Amino acid sequence: MSESPHSRPVSFSQSERAEIIFPGDANPLGNLFGGRLMQFIDLCAAMAACRHSRAISITVSMDHIDFVAPVKVGDILILKASVNRAFNTSMEVGVKAMVEDVFAQTLRHVASAYLTFVAVDKQGERVKLPQIVPETDYQKRRFDDAGRRRELRSPEILRKKKLRATLTPEWHV
Amino acid sequence: MSESPHSRPVSFSQSERAEIIFPGDANPLGNLFGGRLMQFIDLCAAMAACRHSRAISITVSMDHIDFVAPVKVGDILILKASVNRAFNTSMEVGVKAMVEDVFAQTLRHVASAYLTFVAVDKQGERVKLPQIVPETDYQKRRFDDAGRRRELRSPEILRKKKLRATLTPEWHV
Amino acid sequence: MSESPHSRPVSFSQSERAEIIFPGDANPLGNLFGGRLMQFIDLCAAMAACRHSRAISITVSMDHIDFVAPVKVGDILILKASVNRAFNTSMEVGVKAMVEDVFAQTLRHVASAYLTFVAVDKQGERVKLPQIVPETDYQKRRFDDAGRRRELRSPEILRKKKLRATLTPEWHV
Amino acid sequence: MSESPHSRPVSFSQSERAEIIFPGDANPLGNLFGGRLMQFIDLCAAMAACRHSRAISITVSMDHIDFVAPVKVGDILILKASVNRAFNTSMEVGVKAMVEDVFAQTLRHVASAYLTFVAVDKQGERVKLPQIVPETDYQKRRFDDAGRRRELRSPEILRKKKLRATLTPEWHV
Amino acid sequence: MSESPHSRPVSFSQSERAEIIFPGDANPLGNLFGGRLMQFIDLCAAMAACRHSRAISITVSMDHIDFVAPVKVGDILILKASVNRAFNTSMEVGVKAMVEDVFAQTLRHVASAYLTFVAVDKQGERVKLPQIVPETDYQKRRFDDAGRRRELRSPEILRKKKLRATLTPEWHV
Amino acid sequence: MSESPHSRPVSFSQSERAEIIFPGDANPLGNLFGGRLMQFIDLCAAMAACRHSRAISITVSMDHIDFVAPVKVGDILILKASVNRAFNTSMEVGVKAMVEDVFAQTLRHVASAYLTFVAVDKQGERVKLPQIVPETDYQKRRFDDAGRRRELRSPEILRKKKLRATLTPEWHV
Repeated sequence: MSESPHSRPVSFSQSERAEIIFPGDANPLGNLFGGRLMQFIDLCAAMAACRHSRAISITVSMDHIDFVAPVKVGDILILKASVNRAFNTSMEVGVKAMVEDVFAQTLRHVASAYLTFVAVDKQGERVKLPQIVPETDYQKRRFDDAGRRRELRSPEILRKKKLRATLTPEWHV
Repeated sequence: MSESPHSRPVSFSQSERAEIIFPGDANPLGNLFGGRLMQFIDLCAAMAACRHSRAISITVSMDHIDFVAPVKVGDILILKASVNRAFNTSMEVGVKAMVEDVFAQTLRHVASAYLTFVAVDKQGERVKLPQIVPETDYQKRRFDDAGRRRELRSPEILRKKKLRATLTPEWHV
Repeated sequence: MSESPHSRPVSFSQSERAEIIFPGDANPLGNLFGGRLMQFIDLCAAMAACRHSRAISITVSMDHIDFVAPVKVGDILILKASVNRAFNTSMEVGVKAMVEDVFAQTLRHVASAYLTFVAVDKQGERVKLPQIVPETDYQKRRFDDAGRRRELRSPEILRKKKLRATLTPEWHV
Repeated sequence: MSESPHSRPVSFSQSERAEIIFPGDANPLGNLFGGRLMQFIDLCAAMAACRHSRAISITVSMDHIDFVAPVKVGDILILKASVNRAFNTSMEVGVKAMVEDVFAQTLRHVASAYLTFVAVDKQGERVKLPQIVPETDYQKRRFDDAGRRRELRSPEILRKKKLRATLTPEWHV
Repeated sequence: MSESPHSRPVSFSQSERAEIIFPGDANPLGNLFGGRLMQFIDLCAAMAACRHSRAISITVSMDHIDFVAPVKVGDILILKASVNRAFNTSMEVGVKAMVEDVFAQTLRHVASAYLTFVAVDKQGERVKLPQIVPETDYQKRRFDDAGRRRELRSPEILRKKKLRATLTPEWHV
Repeated sequence: MSESPHSRPVSFSQSERAEIIFPGDANPLGNLFGGRLMQFIDLCAAMAACRHSRAISITVSMDHIDFVAPVKVGDILILKASVNRAFNTSMEVGVKAMVEDVFAQTLRHVASAYLTFVAVDKQGERVKLPQIVPETDYQKRRFDDAGRRRELRSPEILRKKKLRATLTPEWHV
């Protein structure tokens, strides 16, 4: 990995995906269902991770996510993602999902998510990542926030590991 | 909603989904991709919510989720979900994803998730939920934990609402 | 295959798949279409076969199947499968499909099917199967019935082979 | 339904579907999986039923089906269907699935199936069907065979109904 | 490639695909969306190319295409394709898409397309193609037309190559 | 439609969709197949049309398209679309598809397409469109080119209409 650059600007990883919601994406109420939206979010985040790392990128975790507004068939869903910060072999990607209601001509915030990715080579081994260079004020704030969120995640991950050690093999008990 | 029962046992909502991972579910490395796993988790949780509430159930949020082990093409993915606790109009569903590697004959924990759902009628209005009656020791522990997790979520949700109020309309800045 | 166990109980292979029917699974009338239900049945049966054999399992045949009740968008479809009996290199899997109508709170039988699977290694060669140990009265009855059904299939398969030998290469005549 | 014709020739309902098998249709071995083939068979049969009845057609049953040869990624799958005979409100559709291996330049028989369909109006009520007029010797033989197969199905259906009456509500026992 | 035949009749490549349009294929208006129809057209054309060349066939271009009539959920879409003419390593495939409205009992022309394919071996290298022998008057007319269309395409392709050389790397300017 | 604005800038309609190519999108060679790429192009173009017109937009035609480079599993496909010009009730949308090979770190042009869309209201009636205001030099050139392309399409459409009038009902002749 010696030829890999030491750092890249945030703009390098910015990814966008706009999508009209079709009946095949809907739940029985005619709204986009949560799991499909999570899939869109993961795919858009994977793209940002892939662009920054220039390698296959794998989802390691996703922070708490709220779905604050429904998305209907016929709406335009817009997803924007970028790498907020890279650590040694992991990186935090932020995704924002918004809806343009083309009839009402309104823009609504639907969900925001922070995902952690690692990049791997063809043998599946983790690769060292180039660092992120934030350029705008917003990018700098997200860079700082990503550091704080990482510290918050560490004890939670530990706590979960302990919890798992005590979990019953059978959930339905 | 007067004919609705006041409470139901946890066992009423227990849902299971077992699935062989096919090439069409894989990322370019030949592993199940994160977003597809999230979709499976959401669908299995929705079933548990639907069984408890006897109504269409909508995903409101998902807590932090870690993907602790990869899932390969040919693996059997097992998802188990049940409603941990119902509040007034929302309920917490727990999902556990495990993999049976049919060749190595091993069982691995892949991910655990807590999702919040609301149930709605055909006009999309929230309905009042029957309460959960935990019966086993494990169900009682999850019932108590769900209450604690709900308290932890409340300030986080508030903090996010404030954050959103200050967000720029354009992510790519 | 020497390390393979000589027998396994039925419970080892029991598989379940619960599924909310979405608009993308529906025919133009808004009901689950027959071919999609057959696909769900085959996938659930393959899981039971896979769990019993610990190997990739391939569908060899399916007995006569009736669809006795429609499945609507919004219904919960529940599929349960288990291996009824293993022969030398083939096994019979039984699948039952039921629907929970979440609004009417009723449970309806939709279809029952018997499928025959073989298990193969990575070169595609058939592997010898562990035998089934039925434990409950219901499992014993299904074990006996599977033997009888196998005898009924043999002449039918022969008759079909002869029929095929006389078939025209072109169906549309 | 007074304007509906009293009869139509077999050729009216003949339907064909040719399909290259893609990686997204494959099981972990790289072969078309049984459930997907059943789905293709049902869709092609539905088309023949639809063309004969000029109405939405619903799968009622499928006779015993053998998968006599594997279908690989890259193979061309050819399905041909036609209505063999119409009764009062139901009709038998025959489907033949063959594979052209484009590299080996061979044609193999993969599966044959007989499905029963009914046609319904927009309220879901069964409609009376036009009769089938077989024209070639092959069509006449299939017309006669469909009558015999129907007689064979009747006692089997009755036997299954009785069996179901004695079935436990829970399969996993 | 010495064992390859020097020529094949048009009938060898004729391919058909009939399909009932399902809700999962529809746009928010309930009609088949254009991109899905293009996919059906490409798949049916690829089959004709594959049958003529006995090799994996890759889409190189598609001529101007008009969608002259909408296709609704519940309609039967019929696609017919055949190779019009083979050149050295490329071939022109013609596809016609028609709709049978099963209720109105009408047949409508939906779209016609001409696609150019090349056939490749497993290393992805182009293979020399057998020539086409047109037999009917219609086939002869299409054979001649394919030659004329090829001449019309050549300057257009050149013009586009020049245009691309002057294109900005960034479309959104 | 009186409240509709008379014109909108090009930037209003600019749409982007970035996508990692997954095995489920591939043909048997492991490349993105042509019909799937056409579907991506149509979906991205529909979004631009939808954003400009604020109404459901329907594909009317697509000009000649060349696929100049293959897209492999693992590649990032980037699609950019914008409305080049609006006429009375139709508009031309341009789409550019490029591939970022994340390993080789190269950007390749894959295809360019011009599609014509109309916008319709909920009854399916065409609506009058706001005009396009090109702002940059590139937008002005595309605006002028769209006018020229429209004139070129008119005689071709007429010629095709005549051709259709003489077409046999049966392609396979």
